[in-house]
Amino acid sequence: MKLIADISIIPLGVGLSLSPYVAACEKVLAEAGLAPRLHANGTDVEGDWDEVMAALKRCHEALHAMGVPRIATNLRLGTRVDRESSMDAKLASVREKLGE
Amino acid sequence: MKLIADISIIPLGVGLSLSPYVAACEKVLAEAGLAPRLHANGTDVEGDWDEVMAALKRCHEALHAMGVPRIATNLRLGTRVDRESSMDAKLASVREKLGE
Amino acid sequence: MKLIADISIIPLGVGLSLSPYVAACEKVLAEAGLAPRLHANGTDVEGDWDEVMAALKRCHEALHAMGVPRIATNLRLGTRVDRESSMDAKLASVREKLGE
Amino acid sequence: MKLIADISIIPLGVGLSLSPYVAACEKVLAEAGLAPRLHANGTDVEGDWDEVMAALKRCHEALHAMGVPRIATNLRLGTRVDRESSMDAKLASVREKLGE
Repeated sequence: MKLIADISIIPLGVGLSLSPYVAACEKVLAEAGLAPRLHANGTDVEGDWDEVMAALKRCHEALHAMGVPRIATNLRLGTRVDRESSMDAKLASVREKLGE
Repeated sequence: MKLIADISIIPLGVGLSLSPYVAACEKVLAEAGLAPRLHANGTDVEGDWDEVMAALKRCHEALHAMGVPRIATNLRLGTRVDRESSMDAKLASVREKLGE
Repeated sequence: MKLIADISIIPLGVGLSLSPYVAACEKVLAEAGLAPRLHANGTDVEGDWDEVMAALKRCHEALHAMGVPRIATNLRLGTRVDRESSMDAKLASVREKLGE
Repeated sequence: MKLIADISIIPLGVGLSLSPYVAACEKVLAEAGLAPRLHANGTDVEGDWDEVMAALKRCHEALHAMGVPRIATNLRLGTRVDRESSMDAKLASVREKLGE
């Protein structure tokens, strides 16, 4: 089952500089072959459900291993079975309506 | 790794009556032994990361098998390694501060 | 416009004990007459769009006034215009399908 | 109060082609001067709290006026008072840690 996901991972108990942890998670997602697309409030990925979810779990494990005591993650997940979908196709569809 | 999660699953392409699908997911979560707690905008569960995530995947599979072509899920995930946590402990802690 | 919302407010930079801040926000929501319903991963409220959103803003302001330097909130919002809706009606509809 | 937000707006009861509605909301956000940044699972904006929230309300109103009976929106909100922040600064900070 193909999954399109938007991952926003918030480490707690490590102060206000969150970028080292966001970067660590990016590396985990990239090493999983998920070609993460960082945006201002999260990271978009797509791939097989099990692979995306396994990589997300490794993000949590990696951050805890870095000393993060608590993590709050917000995830947006999309699956569909009527036809193939992709992040590029979603973006192209909206941009076409915008006349871009 | 213990996971506390809040699952909001939105079936698309099946009209406006979503409760049959929410109920189907509740059954999947209950059968997984996760003791789901339905609230007005989602369902809270807690358990082992792998068990919660496997049950969530079965929710998506069950809804697609019911004819739902597309699903958008919002998940809130919490993990912590500094001490044990539970949904009851979280609720008790807030209620104590409220003087309840 | 009637709004049903689920508010999860996460204070950053204040350590791991978040319950005093969650409780402060509960008080703001209660004082706004929104009858907040605390659950394990957020708080459900319903009311007029403007009133709910004004109370949410006061939550952010109240937490910053308590010394919270940074806040990350996750919101689920629902509006509908085809008929009246309520949190109790949503819950009753799912519970009926569950045979409860 | 400066707000950085990530808006994911899901129209219900209009079938599976959501891009016309996402595009309509983009136009509302752009007309509000918020310079929305579309990504694969939402739209990032930044601005004054009241302006962002007023534009979001107009998105819901515009979609309902287009015939959407029900809308489910997921919002990520960030505020901070310790220093200025921006979406560009957030992105630059993560990319620096990635060595990009």
